Amino acid sequence: MSRNLPVNADRIALDIDALAGITEPGHPWTRRAFSPLFLEGRRYIEARMKAAGLETRIDAAGNLIGRRAGAKPGLGTITVGSHSDTVPDGGRFDGIAGVISALEVARALSDRDIQLDHDLEIVDFLAEEVSIFGVSCIGSRGMTGQLPEAWLSRVSDGRDLSKGILEVGGDPSALLTQKRPDIAGFLELHIEQGPVLEAEGKDVGIVTAIAGITRIEVTVEGRADHAGTTPMDRRADALVAASQLVLDIRAAAMEHARTPGHFAATVGEFRIEPNAANVVPSKVVLLIDGRAEIRSDMEAFCQWLDGHVVTLAAEHGVSIKPPLRVSDNLPTPGDLGLLDTLEQACDTVGARHRRMASGAGHDTAWIAKVAPAAMIFVPCREGRSHSADEWAENDDIALGAAVLFEAVCDMDKSLSNIIQEKPDGTHTR
Amino acid sequence: MSRNLPVNADRIALDIDALAGITEPGHPWTRRAFSPLFLEGRRYIEARMKAAGLETRIDAAGNLIGRRAGAKPGLGTITVGSHSDTVPDGGRFDGIAGVISALEVARALSDRDIQLDHDLEIVDFLAEEVSIFGVSCIGSRGMTGQLPEAWLSRVSDGRDLSKGILEVGGDPSALLTQKRPDIAGFLELHIEQGPVLEAEGKDVGIVTAIAGITRIEVTVEGRADHAGTTPMDRRADALVAASQLVLDIRAAAMEHARTPGHFAATVGEFRIEPNAANVVPSKVVLLIDGRAEIRSDMEAFCQWLDGHVVTLAAEHGVSIKPPLRVSDNLPTPGDLGLLDTLEQACDTVGARHRRMASGAGHDTAWIAKVAPAAMIFVPCREGRSHSADEWAENDDIALGAAVLFEAVCDMDKSLSNIIQEKPDGTHTR
Repeated sequence: MSRNLPVNADRIALDIDALAGITEPGHPWTRRAFSPLFLEGRRYIEARMKAAGLETRIDAAGNLIGRRAGAKPGLGTITVGSHSDTVPDGGRFDGIAGVISALEVARALSDRDIQLDHDLEIVDFLAEEVSIFGVSCIGSRGMTGQLPEAWLSRVSDGRDLSKGILEVGGDPSALLTQKRPDIAGFLELHIEQGPVLEAEGKDVGIVTAIAGITRIEVTVEGRADHAGTTPMDRRADALVAASQLVLDIRAAAMEHARTPGHFAATVGEFRIEPNAANVVPSKVVLLIDGRAEIRSDMEAFCQWLDGHVVTLAAEHGVSIKPPLRVSDNLPTPGDLGLLDTLEQACDTVGARHRRMASGAGHDTAWIAKVAPAAMIFVPCREGRSHSADEWAENDDIALGAAVLFEAVCDMDKSLSNIIQEKPDGTHTR
Repeated sequence: MSRNLPVNADRIALDIDALAGITEPGHPWTRRAFSPLFLEGRRYIEARMKAAGLETRIDAAGNLIGRRAGAKPGLGTITVGSHSDTVPDGGRFDGIAGVISALEVARALSDRDIQLDHDLEIVDFLAEEVSIFGVSCIGSRGMTGQLPEAWLSRVSDGRDLSKGILEVGGDPSALLTQKRPDIAGFLELHIEQGPVLEAEGKDVGIVTAIAGITRIEVTVEGRADHAGTTPMDRRADALVAASQLVLDIRAAAMEHARTPGHFAATVGEFRIEPNAANVVPSKVVLLIDGRAEIRSDMEAFCQWLDGHVVTLAAEHGVSIKPPLRVSDNLPTPGDLGLLDTLEQACDTVGARHRRMASGAGHDTAWIAKVAPAAMIFVPCREGRSHSADEWAENDDIALGAAVLFEAVCDMDKSLSNIIQEKPDGTHTR
């Protein structure tokens, strides 16, 4: 990279490489939340935070936070971060790039002796990925009072989540009343985990919204007949009907994807019964993963699906139960003011950018519930993620970190201005 | 049943009910070959054979045989039989109906003091179903010198098949040289295991051929992408491609089924990887079970499939390896003379009949390799088989047994005549 950036690309590479070294042997890169390796990774990050002059703590939700005090106490906190935990066998950059970029913002401010008016916090959120407790975004939900109480009793490896949070230094007893009304704005950098930026030659994606995720289970029931003796026209083959459904779901999703707003629907789980060579399949259970940037798209899709399975069942002589909505999360739009701020920051550092939705879930979605929040994507090779093939160029990450730096500086001014205009002294917009 | 049949329907019902009582408790009806229950069932059948005046023995292949000497020694043996073993949780009639009907033929001959010229043998073949040793038709293959030697070393529950045959009273050391050149003709009665006779109101199916069975494995490989972030038009979804293949296989099979000769193709095994909600499926392995009465149909199907997967792979951006023919058996036609004999027997007893192929495999297919052989079907309810729902009306079985009786009497005359015409005194046609 020949650009003269406000951040130090080598320092970013050094930290990402160091964290990549903290992995389960033979399973690059594995540093799952609540594991000893995870804590080892956090000790490294904490040491680097301290070296950058940050004051560190673990909050009640088990998030590792590095704090840099602002010049005007009470203005509120600008928060930047992501997560250092990984999925099994993946994630050299997923989350880590965002934590280190956030840390680099703090270091770049120190390099230039800039003191913000706002407090600045760099956060490594606890367990963004689906952890051993079977749930995700524990830290970002917990920081903002959105962790369901029942989750604390989820058990894995002989301990419950409450104990797990305690072991990483959190305080489950204080967790349920935890709020962060002081957060004035939040930013996260993350790898795209998709192929769009690379394919279009863009440096940065400005995330307009984090898609809602809707999971729908469909059960197709036919009749288990002898595959040799049952004439082709006397069958109720659950696999044939389910295969048609897979194609129809894809066609419907393609249609929604052609209109504005990210949309995807995937049949990712699919199992048949009895799964025997000489028996006509009697049952298929499949799970649809739907993602929509625009809620009405998902509602239209679900409505279409409900009607379509009735038609399909009649056509194939099978029975299909009404599709079961297993989970359903709304889309989270990025804060419009912050999207403009990020766009301007891209222009300042010379990053080619585009607006785009995130098809994946992120900690930002939870912080956005309580404060203005937005995120940026940096390209990753071939869109590969959650696998050992995941790769992002350090120069791309550094350019993204520079965008964060410029955006944070701008937020410090613009958020202050807005708050100064308010007569009652509150610190949120 | 008001008809005046040459067989005794009540005696058939009594024996089938008695065998139904010899089952694993809680798993009606389970009497798997080589199990203590199987041997208990055989003791019952042997006792009934003896009560019918038959001389019993176990042959080298472990088949239970009841013999009734003919008037003209050396003419050869008319053989009638099926199997008394079951699949797990199924088979109250599958095989058993044929063994008891064959026994009833011998009893009906005794009732009427008929002595055939030929010897008559009633056979309970060993292990027609896929047994604990993972292979099928052990007795009929073994009786005719067609049991692969390697199978004798197949191990289950700490003993090999050789030991298993020994335990049921067979003689594995004599097995590989076993032949039965004396068999002059063979008949088997079996439930249809399909819905055709019931649907068409026929009493008897005269089996023109036992379909060849061809098993073909197809592997579809796509790319495991993030289901949330990968745009719909940038995917290589193995499940979508495989779903199209399932539909195309069905369409091709429907086409073949519309032309003369039984044809069926079923995707019975189907599994996807990684089978995770949020990952685009990267791989599908599926197994096609193809059945053809006419060999050229199967060859045409296989040729179509080989070409079609190339087109399909290109259309869906996935890769599909050349389909792998895992196993491939030719169709076995019924003996033309015996088909006429059976048709005439149907007319004699007033059974409504039709010619049809067997989509399932049977012991008859192995005996047909060494002697004139044919089989008849009797209806079963809704075509259900290999399940506790399997049901055949006793009157239908009795009518089928009467057809066997008439056919055997006719064979005794016609086979004798043919042999008498031969100057060299050989006993086969």
